[in-house]
Amino acid sequence: VTDTAPHPFDVATRLQANSDGVLRGATSEAYWNFTGPFGGTTAATLLRAVLEHEKRAGDPVSITVNFCAPIARGDFQIALREIRTNRSTQHWYAELSQPEVGIAANATIACAARRETWAHQPARPPPAPAPEMLAALPTQGMMAWLQRYEFRFVHNQPKRFAATPNPQPDSALSHLWLSDAPPRPLDFLSLTALADTFFARIFHVRGALVPIGTVSMTTYFHADAAGLSAVGSAPLLGVSDAKVFNKGYADQTVELWSRDGSLLATSTQIVYFRDPAG
Amino acid sequence: VTDTAPHPFDVATRLQANSDGVLRGATSEAYWNFTGPFGGTTAATLLRAVLEHEKRAGDPVSITVNFCAPIARGDFQIALREIRTNRSTQHWYAELSQPEVGIAANATIACAARRETWAHQPARPPPAPAPEMLAALPTQGMMAWLQRYEFRFVHNQPKRFAATPNPQPDSALSHLWLSDAPPRPLDFLSLTALADTFFARIFHVRGALVPIGTVSMTTYFHADAAGLSAVGSAPLLGVSDAKVFNKGYADQTVELWSRDGSLLATSTQIVYFRDPAG
Repeated sequence: VTDTAPHPFDVATRLQANSDGVLRGATSEAYWNFTGPFGGTTAATLLRAVLEHEKRAGDPVSITVNFCAPIARGDFQIALREIRTNRSTQHWYAELSQPEVGIAANATIACAARRETWAHQPARPPPAPAPEMLAALPTQGMMAWLQRYEFRFVHNQPKRFAATPNPQPDSALSHLWLSDAPPRPLDFLSLTALADTFFARIFHVRGALVPIGTVSMTTYFHADAAGLSAVGSAPLLGVSDAKVFNKGYADQTVELWSRDGSLLATSTQIVYFRDPAG
Repeated sequence: VTDTAPHPFDVATRLQANSDGVLRGATSEAYWNFTGPFGGTTAATLLRAVLEHEKRAGDPVSITVNFCAPIARGDFQIALREIRTNRSTQHWYAELSQPEVGIAANATIACAARRETWAHQPARPPPAPAPEMLAALPTQGMMAWLQRYEFRFVHNQPKRFAATPNPQPDSALSHLWLSDAPPRPLDFLSLTALADTFFARIFHVRGALVPIGTVSMTTYFHADAAGLSAVGSAPLLGVSDAKVFNKGYADQTVELWSRDGSLLATSTQIVYFRDPAG
């Protein structure tokens, strides 16, 4: 990456408008996951469709992405609809499709004009040493998307995953510093993707890799564009946990904190898992 | 309500299919809120559209509802699209509209076949006395929808709201027993509505009623239909909190627990507030 080359994240989430208003993008090898592109880039690409639309008003406050089917390598299309524009809020609906797959993902996105108000943050970040004090998780030779992030675990770094699950469940809670690799100034797109970088909680709890897939993910943004811009490319402190694993589905909760202790985003997802060992 | 009359909740969420496949419903005075119907019944009505569809497969695992505009008194339509049906998951998109309003709400809903798996519930319900030991919040003379629920606060019962906000923020956390009034056996519809019965966190924190509105709400279901049916009409223990209020928007988190300590649903919403006092 030179000073003039685009960051691989911007390549992965790039869209071009066709004459019919449909947007076209393509999957990126740089963010390839096990059976498709990393879901964080898919979510960010759907958000980019809105953010680059000429009628977009305000900053995003929420995005829900449903992962309907694995996206195949190659080109995809995004059809975007403006659902409603009010005085201070705006709603969008987007569908990502491929001819050979059909609809692979859809999203609802809300934007809003954010103005100064009374403010209060009851939540607090967990204590953590400075990211410079911690070694990054080695990701060489692992799936491509893992190499596009630096993971510096503060709490509950995954051990070497076993072939069979632990008989006793381990903790689902992780604290870690997260950053793009190479570094990239924070914006809504990268924040959306960062919310999906947490390993499935069941990997931590079972100590083993079991088949999983995110069905739906929702992220709320608690800062405006200027607030994210002020973070620059500093690492974010991430917190992830789960409350329940039952009948093939588990929740996953996420907080993303700036180094100075501002909660930038909260996110939650519902994750399919295959683990018949019960 | 006699043994044969439908419960007011079922009247409020009732839908009829037109010959063109569009569903028709109507707002209910019994669940009227300040400027429109209670959002919980709107969310439940959108879910009902899916659950009553002949092609629906499995139980709902997630629903996201976006509240795009106030729904006017009277009739509305729901247009429902099957987005994708996989072997064990199914995705839907629904839009609620009125001729004079346009699109007032939309929703994405995922269903799934739920099978026995390894199960684990790291989260625990807060300690609470039995609901029979607690008085219900008086709701006579208040907004209609409040009278359709019994609220038995365990922790942080709202005081009489002041005309001006507290100078110092109070806690955003509430624990309370919740039930339909009159009682109604639990199902996915009522559980969806119950997730929206929590007072806006800012009312608790500021000790005052400020203008608010939910922009988007997401609920995950952690039990299947049989699991909900086993609860019957027993009260649920609800937990609600907020992490951050900033620039006109706040998050709100919800847990809904059965009396025997099973986490039935988790929910989150992003709420607009007007409070320029900062």
